[in-house]
Amino acid sequence: ETSVTLYGIIDTGIGYQQLKGSDGYKATRFGVINGVQSGSRWGMKGSEDLGNGLHAVFQLESGFDSSTGNSAQGGRLFGRQATVGLAGDSWGELDLGRQTNIASKYLGGVIDPFGNGFAQANLGESFTSANTLRYDNMILYQTPNFSGFQFGLGYAFNASGNQAWKISGQNDKNNRAITTGLRYANGPISAALTYDRFDNDSIDGGAVNEWNIGAAYDFEVVKVSLGFGQTRNGLFQTQGAGFNNADSGSADYGVGSDAMVKLDGLKVNSYLVGLSAPIGNGKILASWQMADPGSSYTGDLKKQQAYSLGYTYNLSKRTNLYAIGSYATHQYFSDNLKSTAIGVGVRHMF
Amino acid sequence: ETSVTLYGIIDTGIGYQQLKGSDGYKATRFGVINGVQSGSRWGMKGSEDLGNGLHAVFQLESGFDSSTGNSAQGGRLFGRQATVGLAGDSWGELDLGRQTNIASKYLGGVIDPFGNGFAQANLGESFTSANTLRYDNMILYQTPNFSGFQFGLGYAFNASGNQAWKISGQNDKNNRAITTGLRYANGPISAALTYDRFDNDSIDGGAVNEWNIGAAYDFEVVKVSLGFGQTRNGLFQTQGAGFNNADSGSADYGVGSDAMVKLDGLKVNSYLVGLSAPIGNGKILASWQMADPGSSYTGDLKKQQAYSLGYTYNLSKRTNLYAIGSYATHQYFSDNLKSTAIGVGVRHMF
Amino acid sequence: ETSVTLYGIIDTGIGYQQLKGSDGYKATRFGVINGVQSGSRWGMKGSEDLGNGLHAVFQLESGFDSSTGNSAQGGRLFGRQATVGLAGDSWGELDLGRQTNIASKYLGGVIDPFGNGFAQANLGESFTSANTLRYDNMILYQTPNFSGFQFGLGYAFNASGNQAWKISGQNDKNNRAITTGLRYANGPISAALTYDRFDNDSIDGGAVNEWNIGAAYDFEVVKVSLGFGQTRNGLFQTQGAGFNNADSGSADYGVGSDAMVKLDGLKVNSYLVGLSAPIGNGKILASWQMADPGSSYTGDLKKQQAYSLGYTYNLSKRTNLYAIGSYATHQYFSDNLKSTAIGVGVRHMF
Repeated sequence: ETSVTLYGIIDTGIGYQQLKGSDGYKATRFGVINGVQSGSRWGMKGSEDLGNGLHAVFQLESGFDSSTGNSAQGGRLFGRQATVGLAGDSWGELDLGRQTNIASKYLGGVIDPFGNGFAQANLGESFTSANTLRYDNMILYQTPNFSGFQFGLGYAFNASGNQAWKISGQNDKNNRAITTGLRYANGPISAALTYDRFDNDSIDGGAVNEWNIGAAYDFEVVKVSLGFGQTRNGLFQTQGAGFNNADSGSADYGVGSDAMVKLDGLKVNSYLVGLSAPIGNGKILASWQMADPGSSYTGDLKKQQAYSLGYTYNLSKRTNLYAIGSYATHQYFSDNLKSTAIGVGVRHMF
Repeated sequence: ETSVTLYGIIDTGIGYQQLKGSDGYKATRFGVINGVQSGSRWGMKGSEDLGNGLHAVFQLESGFDSSTGNSAQGGRLFGRQATVGLAGDSWGELDLGRQTNIASKYLGGVIDPFGNGFAQANLGESFTSANTLRYDNMILYQTPNFSGFQFGLGYAFNASGNQAWKISGQNDKNNRAITTGLRYANGPISAALTYDRFDNDSIDGGAVNEWNIGAAYDFEVVKVSLGFGQTRNGLFQTQGAGFNNADSGSADYGVGSDAMVKLDGLKVNSYLVGLSAPIGNGKILASWQMADPGSSYTGDLKKQQAYSLGYTYNLSKRTNLYAIGSYATHQYFSDNLKSTAIGVGVRHMF
Repeated sequence: ETSVTLYGIIDTGIGYQQLKGSDGYKATRFGVINGVQSGSRWGMKGSEDLGNGLHAVFQLESGFDSSTGNSAQGGRLFGRQATVGLAGDSWGELDLGRQTNIASKYLGGVIDPFGNGFAQANLGESFTSANTLRYDNMILYQTPNFSGFQFGLGYAFNASGNQAWKISGQNDKNNRAITTGLRYANGPISAALTYDRFDNDSIDGGAVNEWNIGAAYDFEVVKVSLGFGQTRNGLFQTQGAGFNNADSGSADYGVGSDAMVKLDGLKVNSYLVGLSAPIGNGKILASWQMADPGSSYTGDLKKQQAYSLGYTYNLSKRTNLYAIGSYATHQYFSDNLKSTAIGVGVRHMF
């Protein structure tokens, strides 16, 4: 019995990006892109049989930028995941440590034809709690699969960084986060419902929260998905424009720049329509998304929309090529910002 | 023949910590704790047979915080160990690079029921040279086991960081450190004697040094251990209060904050009484420790004492659960600081 | 079929270094040295057969300082290499990501008896484009071996760091680099020709460029090599004095301190004569190098020369010992700086 599996993904390509703003502002970038379909990573994982249907499980996953070799996730060694847990055949699994939230685990697999990947094309552009969001210091429980249903509930004692001391008479500086959700998969039907909430006493404003719902039907020729969500009092992890992924620490949000940001009164409605169609050895992927802040917060925020089209082609079980094009209007809800991203790449899994 | 073994430990739990000071100061922390029994780590090691009883050996060990995925040891990649060496059946082993000192290798295994682990409960709370202290740039020689005896001697050209240039007419900025010791183990009896010394010409004050002696007897129902040591002119690696381990770069010492600190004239006597008792699939662990600065340095320093009780329960050979409680008075030798730490966790080895 | 190979090198020793300057300036350093023969590293690599003579290949390589455990290459996780590529039996190989340039791949193997290693002794002391120089964001194509010939061509969209946005009306901040070369090996004869060029619009001065040519003949008793090169308008990656390797981020160049530096008008001619002779289980290595700035740039720059002698002794296929001595005059082209480096070490490969 081997006690550890070494694995990874390297995803690198060539891409062109363009940002167009007001007053003739135009920024372009042409060069090597990385982690577009799947964030480049290496990791170790394992499972030990403890008897009586009980297993000890662990996963350590390290993200990196395959164009420069730098660590991703702000330089963390195991920035993608660092968990140890116990799993029981009858009662489910309990994991402790840094890991993605329930929305990122459950929603994308149902509604996003791009499967939480492809940068600006991924559902995280509009559904910020499902944007491969990770919480530190999280205890996460998930049930086993019951007739296609699975439920998960997690609590992060501090979602970002080491646990802070709470000093008498002062505010608690920890980002307390709750994540929960339900997913269903049976034959051609799949569906998910998620809810996330975080608060930080030392920052003014109400608790930021988001709920999302989505469903998909696989007609075999084509799979169709629909998603809707609502975010209040702020945003979770925002997606950078084009191939600029917030997850790599390069977010630059018009209305804030943090992984989680309180914006009291902001209310964003998010929509997604997705299509995917298998074609020979590959798959065509397409989605339309919108994040609509209405007139909440300030009246200057505009409806952000993204139109994305992709194609993946399998060279083997572990290697595929891809092409992606995505166009977003009112990126970052800003009045004039248009973001275009076009790229091709190769993804290799080991 | 495999040339490399990939291995690791993940140790994560839930804990409560409290610091109480003067004037109603109270700080608490409840959440995910990590590396309490054993620092979370992954590593690579190997041994190559060179013939004639000679082996080439290496070990690269990387520490991390399993609650956030960050690197430990101040962000070093292989912060726990980075050595290559030669080992001979007849003459012993010579290792070059970053590694723990002799006190950390020899003393804890004899006197500390908590085995150099369990944060505030570990012997490093009082015996700072045995607090899993690591020296950079060390050449370390250890004899083979002779009738139960083993001797070790190491010299660090610069104990912390890259070798500094010595410029004519200026002080030498390198932390020169010597570590040596003897240990004995035979049947129920074990004993250890260690000595460490470091100096830095560019800092005023005498050389910091510490010697420690300890012994244990295993009555099978219970193992009893006693330790005594004396530190002069400063401190080696100080232990953070509660689950706050200096080794993770989070030390906050009342009388200094560095890994090694010169405090000219300080003289601390350290004491430890330990007990451990196997119970079924587990073990009960207990110790009392005291670090007594007497009236040396300034008269304001108080006797730091720590009372600790723990329990480990083996789920398998590679996975165990644990519970720990520790209470310290005059933490950091300060007049009023009381530190309480209570936690449970799981440790998985791969 | 295994999908990943875990490998590495640890190279650690003991050495003495001395820098002597004007006005009695003298700096010395004695202690643990690391990565002298080969930079200490660990990595993962693999190749997947895609059928029809096509392979997917990847390599992730992480450099570290084996005396302290710190990451090398300025703290990058995979600072030595991070590539994914496709290789075809008939057409060659295409690799994307961070990797060494063609000069570092082709020239050292031909002309440098020290094989791109041994710090100050390596050809990078004089031929800065061949100094194990790495480019980020590079697309690199290499032909298969045709009757002993191989050709390579690479383009780095930004040679150092993430792709920068090009904003209309502003300079392009990316370091655009081209690397190309040809090598030949057949029986006792080997030869190489390389060319590198980089430019950065936002820095004044012409494009920095270097071409190098070299050849060697293996008489079996001794192998003799000759190299010549010319660098214009700046320098590529400069070598630190003694065991202080620029590659570890510790360069301190008299006329600049960056990995690539523009110095408009500078013209350096580089020369190398190398000898290596197998002796029993080992090999003797020797070279003389000179980098001559003539009267270009400023008249104060002097001819830097380095005389180096080394010896390697194989304990096994994976482990060897080495000794090295190198003496350089006018180090960093400075009027008076003499650099001496003497060391012994062990290199273990896994």
